[in-house]
Amino acid sequence: MKPVCLVIGAGAGIGGNVGKRFAAAGYHVVLCRRSNEQGLQDLVQQIEADGGSASGRLLNAAAEDSIEECVSSVEAEIGPIEVALYNLGAQIGNRSLEETSYKAFELGWRLGTFGLFRLASVLCPLMAERGKGSILVTSATSAMRGNSGQHSHAAAMGGRRMLCQSLNAQYASKGVHVAHILVDGAVDAPDTLGKMLGPEVFAQLREKHGGENDGLMLPAEMAETYFHIAHQHRSAWTHELDLRAFSDVAWWNHE
Amino acid sequence: MKPVCLVIGAGAGIGGNVGKRFAAAGYHVVLCRRSNEQGLQDLVQQIEADGGSASGRLLNAAAEDSIEECVSSVEAEIGPIEVALYNLGAQIGNRSLEETSYKAFELGWRLGTFGLFRLASVLCPLMAERGKGSILVTSATSAMRGNSGQHSHAAAMGGRRMLCQSLNAQYASKGVHVAHILVDGAVDAPDTLGKMLGPEVFAQLREKHGGENDGLMLPAEMAETYFHIAHQHRSAWTHELDLRAFSDVAWWNHE
Amino acid sequence: MKPVCLVIGAGAGIGGNVGKRFAAAGYHVVLCRRSNEQGLQDLVQQIEADGGSASGRLLNAAAEDSIEECVSSVEAEIGPIEVALYNLGAQIGNRSLEETSYKAFELGWRLGTFGLFRLASVLCPLMAERGKGSILVTSATSAMRGNSGQHSHAAAMGGRRMLCQSLNAQYASKGVHVAHILVDGAVDAPDTLGKMLGPEVFAQLREKHGGENDGLMLPAEMAETYFHIAHQHRSAWTHELDLRAFSDVAWWNHE
Amino acid sequence: MKPVCLVIGAGAGIGGNVGKRFAAAGYHVVLCRRSNEQGLQDLVQQIEADGGSASGRLLNAAAEDSIEECVSSVEAEIGPIEVALYNLGAQIGNRSLEETSYKAFELGWRLGTFGLFRLASVLCPLMAERGKGSILVTSATSAMRGNSGQHSHAAAMGGRRMLCQSLNAQYASKGVHVAHILVDGAVDAPDTLGKMLGPEVFAQLREKHGGENDGLMLPAEMAETYFHIAHQHRSAWTHELDLRAFSDVAWWNHE
Repeated sequence: MKPVCLVIGAGAGIGGNVGKRFAAAGYHVVLCRRSNEQGLQDLVQQIEADGGSASGRLLNAAAEDSIEECVSSVEAEIGPIEVALYNLGAQIGNRSLEETSYKAFELGWRLGTFGLFRLASVLCPLMAERGKGSILVTSATSAMRGNSGQHSHAAAMGGRRMLCQSLNAQYASKGVHVAHILVDGAVDAPDTLGKMLGPEVFAQLREKHGGENDGLMLPAEMAETYFHIAHQHRSAWTHELDLRAFSDVAWWNHE
Repeated sequence: MKPVCLVIGAGAGIGGNVGKRFAAAGYHVVLCRRSNEQGLQDLVQQIEADGGSASGRLLNAAAEDSIEECVSSVEAEIGPIEVALYNLGAQIGNRSLEETSYKAFELGWRLGTFGLFRLASVLCPLMAERGKGSILVTSATSAMRGNSGQHSHAAAMGGRRMLCQSLNAQYASKGVHVAHILVDGAVDAPDTLGKMLGPEVFAQLREKHGGENDGLMLPAEMAETYFHIAHQHRSAWTHELDLRAFSDVAWWNHE
Repeated sequence: MKPVCLVIGAGAGIGGNVGKRFAAAGYHVVLCRRSNEQGLQDLVQQIEADGGSASGRLLNAAAEDSIEECVSSVEAEIGPIEVALYNLGAQIGNRSLEETSYKAFELGWRLGTFGLFRLASVLCPLMAERGKGSILVTSATSAMRGNSGQHSHAAAMGGRRMLCQSLNAQYASKGVHVAHILVDGAVDAPDTLGKMLGPEVFAQLREKHGGENDGLMLPAEMAETYFHIAHQHRSAWTHELDLRAFSDVAWWNHE
Repeated sequence: MKPVCLVIGAGAGIGGNVGKRFAAAGYHVVLCRRSNEQGLQDLVQQIEADGGSASGRLLNAAAEDSIEECVSSVEAEIGPIEVALYNLGAQIGNRSLEETSYKAFELGWRLGTFGLFRLASVLCPLMAERGKGSILVTSATSAMRGNSGQHSHAAAMGGRRMLCQSLNAQYASKGVHVAHILVDGAVDAPDTLGKMLGPEVFAQLREKHGGENDGLMLPAEMAETYFHIAHQHRSAWTHELDLRAFSDVAWWNHE
C-alpha cells in the first residue's frame, strides 16, 4: 500500500506541485481544493499520466466538519496519512483597516488559523499513535510582521505560526514533524497570485521577473524543499525555514 | 473637559491599576469588564475617593456590537477617547490539543484577536482624524512563541501581535500610537491569575514569590510603564516592549 | 551623596541628553567621550547652570583598560555607579563588503560589542554585590537585521544584543537591570548623524523631517524613556524596547 | 573538472559529514581543520575509499591571512569554489561573566564572526563574478538568544547571524546563496561535543539520548539538509532554517 499524502489547497501552484512531487516518489496523493472540479481532475490525470497515483476532492475548508470528514474518509478508504500539506492562503490583497470587513477578517482566521487547528485536532493524535507523520504548513511573510494593508492576513498568519510552534511543542517528541514554511515572495501560481492580480498584471509580472530571470518562485522547485523537509531523519528536523527567489529581498529588508 | 481613557478588561490587575494611574493624572477613566458589577463599582469608588474621575460599564466583548457601541457612546456622552487599553486575556490554562475544544479555540480568537480588530476599526479612524491617540495592548509570552498546552492562547496572541504591527504601520504616521506590551510573567492579579490557579495555589504563589520578593509583577508598578508609553513624545514612540519581574526568566530563556 | 550615572558616549545627542535628564533628577553625571574637550566642558556647564552636578572625562573606549579604569576611578572618587549608559555607536555609514576593511570591521566590534563586555565585566559584579543597578544600552536597527552595506555595523550590534540578553540572564535576578534600547530611526544628533551625513545633508534632513514635523528623533524626548526604564520597579522591568519617530517606518516594514 | 566544496572546520561531526556528502555527489572536497593531521588524513582516505575526491589542510583560522591564502590557493590549484561551509564553532562551555576572560571573548569573535567576514571578503566577489556559489554557515542557538554562561558564544553567534543577513542582502541577487543553519541541539560529534563534555559524560549522553533514540543530532543526517540547501533552485532559496532532534525542545521553548 502506498503511503498517503493529503494536500489541502491543491491549486496549480505550491499545492499541485507538492502533490506531483510526492506522487513521483511513490505516494498516493489526495488533492483537495474548494472549487474547479475540472482543474482538480486535470491535476489527477497529469499525475496518473506520469505514472503516479492520485485522487481529488472538492473541499470547502471553511465549512463545518469538512476537514474532519476528509481526514476520516481518507484514513478509512485510502490509508494512513503520512504527510499532510496545509496550503490554504488567507491573502485578500492590500486592504486598509477601513476596507477590511469583519467578515473578511473572520474568514481570514477560519482559513488561515482555525482550519489548521481543525486538521491538527484530528490528524495529530493519529500520527502520534503511529509514532510518525509530517504536517507541512505553507506560511507567508505576514506571519513574521504586520504591515499596512495586511490586517486580516497578518493576524491569520501570526496565529498560524504560533499554532505551528504549539503543535511542534506537543507532538515532535511523539514523531510528528510540523514544519512552518515561510514563503517570502511571489509564487508563479496562476490560481492564487494570478487571480489576485488579474491576468494582465500577472502576465506583466511574469514577463518582468519570471522565466529565465527566476524572479518569481517556481512552485515545482519549491516542492523539492517541501519534499526534503518531510523526509528529514528524525534526528535532524527543521521546524521553520524561509523560501524566496534569489533576486528578491528578504522580509526583514524590504517594505 | 478631562481627556478620556477607555479600559477594556478592567479587573483588579493590570486594567484596574492602569485605570487608577490615568485617573490620578487627570483622565476620566471608563472601566469595562464582563461581569462583577460590584467589583466595577468598588473600583470606580476607589478612584473617586482618591480624587479621580471614573465610570464603569459591564461589557461582553464577545457579543456583537458591544465594543462598537461602547466606543460610540463614550465618545458621544463623555468625550473623545485619547487612550484605550485593550486588556482582555485569552489564557485558558495549559491544555493539550485534545483538551482544547473548537469552541475554546474560537473564543480565544474572539477575545484575543478579533476584539482588538473591532476596537481598532471604530477607534483608529476617530483618532486619526484628531491626529492623536494611543492604543495600548496588553500581550503575553504566547505572542512570541507557541508552547505545548498553549494552542489556543498562542494562536490568539500571535494574531494579536501581527495585528498590532499592521495597525501601527497604517496609523502611526497619522498620530495614533499603538503599543504592544508583552507581559512576560505572572501578574499579582486576583481576577485573572488568581481565578486560573484557584485561591489556594494563588496564595502559595504569592507567599513564595510575591510580597517583598517582588517575584510577581505588581500591576500598580506596571501601570507606570503603560502610562509612560502613552505619553511618549511623538518623535520617540515605542511600539513593543516587554515586562517581567527582575527575578523571572525571559521567555527566550525558559520553558 | 548623589547617586552616580555614568554615560559612555556623551555627545550632543542621546548621551548628552540622557545625562541632562538624570542630572535634573538629582544624579551626579559622569560624561565620557572620546574627543572634543570643549564640547564636554560645555555640556558639564549646561548641566551645572541648570542646577545639576556633572563631570567630564575624555575616554578612548577602544584603548586597553580605559573603560575599566574609568569605572574604578569613578567608584573610588565619586561614588557607586547606579546607572550606566553604554551609548557608543559603531555605524560607519553604508559600505559594501568590498569597502569594509578588516580594520573597520574589528573597530566596529571593539566599540559595538567588546566595549560593553568590558564595562559589564567590571560593573556587573559591583552592582550585583550592591543588589541594584541599571545598565542601559543604546542599540540600533542593525541589531535586529543585517542589510546590504551594514556588514560591520550589523555584526557588532547583533553581538551587542545577544550579549545584553546574556548579561540579563545572569544578572537580572541579582538586581542588575540590563536594557537593550533599540533606536530604530534617525536621531537629531549633530555629533553622530550630523557628522556622518555632513553639515549640508544634515541641514536638509532637519529641514524636511525635523522641527515641528517630529520626523527625527529628539534626543531630549528619548531621554525620558531612558530615565523611565532605569526607574522601573524591579517587579516590572523591561529588557528590550524600540524607539522611533511616529512618522517613521518600523524596521520590519522598510528597507 | 569536479566542482569544489571547501569545508572550514572539518572534524568528525558536521564538517566531515558534509564533506562526505558532497564528495559522494561528485565534488572535490577540501577539508580544513586546525589540528589533528591524522584525523584529517583518515577523513580524506575514507572519502577516497568510497570513490570520492578530497584533500586536507591544516588551517589556523585565527591566524592572519590563513583563510585568505587557503581560498586563493584552492582557487588557483584545484578550481573554483562552488560551495563553502563555514563550520567553526566558538562554544567554550557554560561560563559566567567572571569566568569569561577578555581573551576568550575575543577569540570567540575571531572564530565566530570575523573568520566568516574574512572568508566572505575573499570569496563573495569571486562567486558574484561567476554568478553562482553557496556559503553555508553552521550556527547555534546562541545566535537567537543570549543566556547565562553564553556571553562570549552568544555575542559571537549573534554577530555571525547579522553578518549572514548582510551578506545575503548584498550578494543573493548576484547568485551567491548564503544560508544560516541554526543547529539547535546537541550533535553526536566526538570532536566538539565529545571534547567539551569529556569522554565519560559524552558516553553517558550517547547512551541516554543517542543510538536508536535519535536524541542526538546525527551529523550524517544533517548533511543531507546542508546538501539540499546548497542545491536549491535559485527561484526558491532558503536563507535560514533550524535543525534539532525530534525529541528535543526548540530554543524558544526551553532553558
